[in-house]
Amino acid sequence: MHANTDRIQQHIEHIAAFTATPGQGTTRMSYSPQGKQAREYIKAQMQAAGLTVREDAIGNIFGKLAGKDASLPCVMIGSHFDSVPNGGAFDGPAGVVMGLEIATLFHEHKLTPHYPLEIVALVEEEGASFGRGLLASCAIAGKVTLDELNTLCDSQGVSAATRMTEAGFNPEAVNSVIRTPQSIKAFIELHIEQGPVLEQSGTDIGLVDTIVGITQLVVTVTGKAGHAGTTPMDSRQDALVATSKMIAQIGDFARQAGEATVATVGKLQVFPNGANVIPNKVVFTVDIRSKSGDKLNQVIEQTKQCIQQNSVEGIICHIEQPLYVQPTPLNAAIHQKLQKHSDQLGLSSQTMVSGAGHDAMIFAGICDVGLVFVPSRDGLSHHPDEWTDYEQIQKGVDVIFHTVKEITEATQHD
Amino acid sequence: MHANTDRIQQHIEHIAAFTATPGQGTTRMSYSPQGKQAREYIKAQMQAAGLTVREDAIGNIFGKLAGKDASLPCVMIGSHFDSVPNGGAFDGPAGVVMGLEIATLFHEHKLTPHYPLEIVALVEEEGASFGRGLLASCAIAGKVTLDELNTLCDSQGVSAATRMTEAGFNPEAVNSVIRTPQSIKAFIELHIEQGPVLEQSGTDIGLVDTIVGITQLVVTVTGKAGHAGTTPMDSRQDALVATSKMIAQIGDFARQAGEATVATVGKLQVFPNGANVIPNKVVFTVDIRSKSGDKLNQVIEQTKQCIQQNSVEGIICHIEQPLYVQPTPLNAAIHQKLQKHSDQLGLSSQTMVSGAGHDAMIFAGICDVGLVFVPSRDGLSHHPDEWTDYEQIQKGVDVIFHTVKEITEATQHD
Repeated sequence: MHANTDRIQQHIEHIAAFTATPGQGTTRMSYSPQGKQAREYIKAQMQAAGLTVREDAIGNIFGKLAGKDASLPCVMIGSHFDSVPNGGAFDGPAGVVMGLEIATLFHEHKLTPHYPLEIVALVEEEGASFGRGLLASCAIAGKVTLDELNTLCDSQGVSAATRMTEAGFNPEAVNSVIRTPQSIKAFIELHIEQGPVLEQSGTDIGLVDTIVGITQLVVTVTGKAGHAGTTPMDSRQDALVATSKMIAQIGDFARQAGEATVATVGKLQVFPNGANVIPNKVVFTVDIRSKSGDKLNQVIEQTKQCIQQNSVEGIICHIEQPLYVQPTPLNAAIHQKLQKHSDQLGLSSQTMVSGAGHDAMIFAGICDVGLVFVPSRDGLSHHPDEWTDYEQIQKGVDVIFHTVKEITEATQHD
Repeated sequence: MHANTDRIQQHIEHIAAFTATPGQGTTRMSYSPQGKQAREYIKAQMQAAGLTVREDAIGNIFGKLAGKDASLPCVMIGSHFDSVPNGGAFDGPAGVVMGLEIATLFHEHKLTPHYPLEIVALVEEEGASFGRGLLASCAIAGKVTLDELNTLCDSQGVSAATRMTEAGFNPEAVNSVIRTPQSIKAFIELHIEQGPVLEQSGTDIGLVDTIVGITQLVVTVTGKAGHAGTTPMDSRQDALVATSKMIAQIGDFARQAGEATVATVGKLQVFPNGANVIPNKVVFTVDIRSKSGDKLNQVIEQTKQCIQQNSVEGIICHIEQPLYVQPTPLNAAIHQKLQKHSDQLGLSSQTMVSGAGHDAMIFAGICDVGLVFVPSRDGLSHHPDEWTDYEQIQKGVDVIFHTVKEITEATQHD
């Protein structure tokens, strides 16, 4: 039994057509007209696959195939169907379509699992609407309050709660979306890699064993402004020169740490930013991630020391750390099963980290979790040119299908 | 005979009151209502000092004291009276007030020069209205066409020519403002230093011997965007890391070159500038200035080489050079006279470069030029806190007064 590549392609293309920016990539906010169109399509496909469909109070879609034992927790599979502005067709939908295709395989082959199988299509993973990534999975994990939904606003200043209500949902009942550990046996997500590793090594399947820990530093370097022509070199307190010496070194700390550690200065602003004015202030972010909590902490420390060491000659630095998340190990037993089925299907696979956060990371706080990556062409994501060959998605679906089949067929909790 | 500090203070304070941003520094565009108010004040003061006042076709104000020999070229003194937005009270007006005070001294003491004495208050030095610095002096040097006045626009999209016409001037006759070498014997400007040198050394008077040569490079560094979490360190083409390695070195080239060479990266933009995206493009300016044309060229070359050397591993750099001006030596004989009178007045002085362009630089293409600096508190300019003690301005006025007296009294061309 293999997943059907044509069906996968049709689903991906259908969902991609629901975009607010035709010709300029996928822009599909969860509670927009395009979000509603995608929702209707997904619900119809779930129904066609014989699933019992429901939406929770914030708009997550669940399609359930009853198991032989209704008292057992479900095995849940899926991903999210929202996008970033001008993003691609695969980030999110690839995993939703995985769910649809596996439900269809169960339906076509008249498979009745022992444990219930639940397909999920999540909203609001990207945080593009309200600035809060992983909103839906966090709500499922009981980490989102009504207060927050009233406070988080979109770019037009309208609250998440209002947008949800406008779309026909019931944010007041946000607590009703919580899923207990007792209700989910396992969660398996398929996602595009969003990086170059699988493509560069020519590997079919990425089996994620850890979602990296992540921190973000916000560094403010303060010097003294001065006229670029009239201030001698030895009278300067140039915030940008000091900053440059920091940035030139930070990447090396990550490189030396190993264990999939990365460090990135992605955002930087210079003040006053005039060609003939010595910069008096620079504000920049440092994004540090690692598979190892120890290495993460080590690079954070090295970065802070490097910033202090370059704070000389009148330069003052201030460091904030608005984000710190420890690495999330995923479930070893599920990882082994995914590996086994990948091998049995004759596919190449490699164990790897996820450098990005995913809904799977949040589900790991509720239940056993597996995460499968398929290759991203040129490592590209969040871009109209984002691409994964449908054959590659099909291989990922096959691996998860056989794994889910095994897990849902088990007659004992294992 | 000494200049009158109280009068200097009154003039500066009067002119500073003509601002579009009261309480937030001086904002006085040449053709604005505040420009007109300052103009009326300056004209009235010139008339009170017994000068014959005229305005040229673009609004420069001239007050002339006839010399004994009307056939002789004038000795011209002054500066500009426009400001940057939210600037200070001294950049420009200090030199205009120097002219007013010297005219008053001639008037009070009934001095009749041999050569005519011409006080000038120039418009549009800062370039804040139309993005073209030194516009008025360039027009006087014959370097501005009507086409340009029709093309240069302010932030509201209105042309310089239109603004001039609205203010009662006649841009069509821009060629009539040209002054020939035969009509000006010498031009002497007083200006605030706009740097920290005089204040730090406790010196009264800066005698400028050279206005630095200046170049501006615009550098575009192109790498490849990627997800900050999913792109391994060895798969990156990070435009900001490459840029940082460049900026960390550029200042050293200037420091090693000596001869008042400075290099500044003042303006820098990162693309796409997201905390979790590897920068795929950085655009930055390099402002390089030197007293020596050779050193200027040397640092330009070193900077270009440094940029190329850091353009490795998929990084591509593009360098434009929109500005290149050789150093402008000022007149040695005037410099000597200024030095002599400063010494005779018992003032401390030092010979220095001007790191900024001034109208004097343009006049150097027409006639012999001298430029006198007075100390800037904290080296600050283009800022509401810009400050020079009135006593310091008075000392500068004294030096120029005695120099102008000597030059205008000379009965032979020397």
